Amino acid sequence: MLPTHHRRIVLASRPVGEPVESDFEMEEVPVPEPGPGQVLVRGLYLSLDPYMRGRMRDDASYAPPVEIGGVMTGGAVGQIVASLASEFSVGDIVEGRLGWQEFAVGTAASLRRVDRELAPISTANGILGMPGMTAYCGLFEIGNPKVGETVVVSAASGAVGQVVGQLAKRAGCHVVGIAGGARKCSFVIDELGFDACIDYKMDASPFEQALARACPNGIDVYFDNVGGVVSDAVILQLNVWARIVLCGAISQYNSDEPEMAPRLPAFFVGQRVIMRGFIVSDFAAKFDHVRKIMGALVRDGNLKYREDIVDGLENAPRAFIGLLRGENFGKLQVRVSSEDD
Amino acid sequence: MLPTHHRRIVLASRPVGEPVESDFEMEEVPVPEPGPGQVLVRGLYLSLDPYMRGRMRDDASYAPPVEIGGVMTGGAVGQIVASLASEFSVGDIVEGRLGWQEFAVGTAASLRRVDRELAPISTANGILGMPGMTAYCGLFEIGNPKVGETVVVSAASGAVGQVVGQLAKRAGCHVVGIAGGARKCSFVIDELGFDACIDYKMDASPFEQALARACPNGIDVYFDNVGGVVSDAVILQLNVWARIVLCGAISQYNSDEPEMAPRLPAFFVGQRVIMRGFIVSDFAAKFDHVRKIMGALVRDGNLKYREDIVDGLENAPRAFIGLLRGENFGKLQVRVSSEDD
Repeated sequence: MLPTHHRRIVLASRPVGEPVESDFEMEEVPVPEPGPGQVLVRGLYLSLDPYMRGRMRDDASYAPPVEIGGVMTGGAVGQIVASLASEFSVGDIVEGRLGWQEFAVGTAASLRRVDRELAPISTANGILGMPGMTAYCGLFEIGNPKVGETVVVSAASGAVGQVVGQLAKRAGCHVVGIAGGARKCSFVIDELGFDACIDYKMDASPFEQALARACPNGIDVYFDNVGGVVSDAVILQLNVWARIVLCGAISQYNSDEPEMAPRLPAFFVGQRVIMRGFIVSDFAAKFDHVRKIMGALVRDGNLKYREDIVDGLENAPRAFIGLLRGENFGKLQVRVSSEDD
Repeated sequence: MLPTHHRRIVLASRPVGEPVESDFEMEEVPVPEPGPGQVLVRGLYLSLDPYMRGRMRDDASYAPPVEIGGVMTGGAVGQIVASLASEFSVGDIVEGRLGWQEFAVGTAASLRRVDRELAPISTANGILGMPGMTAYCGLFEIGNPKVGETVVVSAASGAVGQVVGQLAKRAGCHVVGIAGGARKCSFVIDELGFDACIDYKMDASPFEQALARACPNGIDVYFDNVGGVVSDAVILQLNVWARIVLCGAISQYNSDEPEMAPRLPAFFVGQRVIMRGFIVSDFAAKFDHVRKIMGALVRDGNLKYREDIVDGLENAPRAFIGLLRGENFGKLQVRVSSEDD
């Protein structure tokens, strides 16, 4: 028996600076009814990702903001519990933009079937989902790494960074991560197999020196998830012909005024730096191809991943606030309900 | 009869901030003798270019600095006055890195023959030389302009900018220049045929508004010769998928400490901006091809150019200092001597 009501989290107010829990509000509303061609999906794993901070902002952006009172947007893995669509049966596992809620309606166009034989279904939010596609497409379509080059990845233990570094190692590169704290750095080296990982929480000057020691041949590709002063230091060690893959800038997402940074145009000219921003959907036409490659690598144990799973939709706001502080360790998700529920 | 001695300008001291005339020193030294395979060239037109400020600095760069006491480097057009090389005869006009001096020795490898039938020989320092190659290769190899797009060029009346804008017009773009002062702006519109030209010497806020009015469909390609606050304003009006061609940053060349600028990583990501720095020699393999195209356009009157020619080697330092202040109007050159001398 399906419940008549379900819980969802809406945006109560637009955060100023760091979000607080009262910027979110839990509501209980009737479970929606699927119409013809639609399915009803029960949310199992909700993905929490840094880009969501941008959706809480009322700015022009590449995607519209969440309205005040609107359900927080987000990708999730769920299970079909009622189907009026020929493409899906009850019990199927799917992935789509279900939002921060227990139930959602969808269509064949808005949902993607998840192969539960390949890997745990939560990976459809992680290494085999948006973060994995981001890592693969950003690294290979923009970073263009070549054998023997040095690749530096910030937020190296995060959902995207952990994949970027492992792929760059397989591509024959010297790979150096940047992460916050000794525990994450050890994981990145010992579990993921990066050549080195620098703790950015050290003082600035030792950080630069540690980075230089870890990159004796300079830096050819910088896959940037964090921006800010960490990136300033990396950029000054870029080689001629270097590429900056501008994926995200989590250090800046809670600030309402742009920070100031040193201008380095002559450096960018002299080093012929290419810097390019991207959104993962720019490469949507390649996802099926990439997911096959990544799926095989994961299935055969050639790509590792770490997930950080928090229980209960009610804990999503707190977990999301922690994500922006770097408190998560691996791909952050919320277990909304279990398949057995 | 050749003189026994000639004049040359050496670097007397490294400038701090804006160069002053005493940073340069005029010397009189014996005219060098060409050895086997060499020629002696009399300098006719010395090219003065913003990049030379970088050579006065003792920094790591894409090119080595001029030593204290060393002859200032620079491209020039000259005439062969003695030849021990089978490739050249006395009287031939050539272009090469002759430096700030009246005579220089060269070889077939270091000199390029100039076709005096095509256009006045001084154009080998300008529209048919390094600045013209910079404009063509930067615009088409990096800017990738498409019919109907909007191209903005800073330093629009300068040696590179004037060519970029005319080429972009021929490529079917809406072209907006940025220049300093009403006289340059009128020239850019009335003589070169840009659609608009904004005077950056206006107050900041009207500048942004004037730029927005001149670019009603936003900006797709920004060919940047100046950097600094002008570029900050342009960048905020870039469309999604925009390209920044980072050619130079003359506003920064006299400062020893980097200026601070607002960080805009989320903007760069959301707009998928590609920013790429380059040095004209990156595209050296294409120069013969490009020079044929540009030569035909100039010969047929389809590309205009303006040169700013100063008489006498002794005036090179003052003219160069003025170049960094934007006081020149068109491609700056020094007439070192006449063909008849």
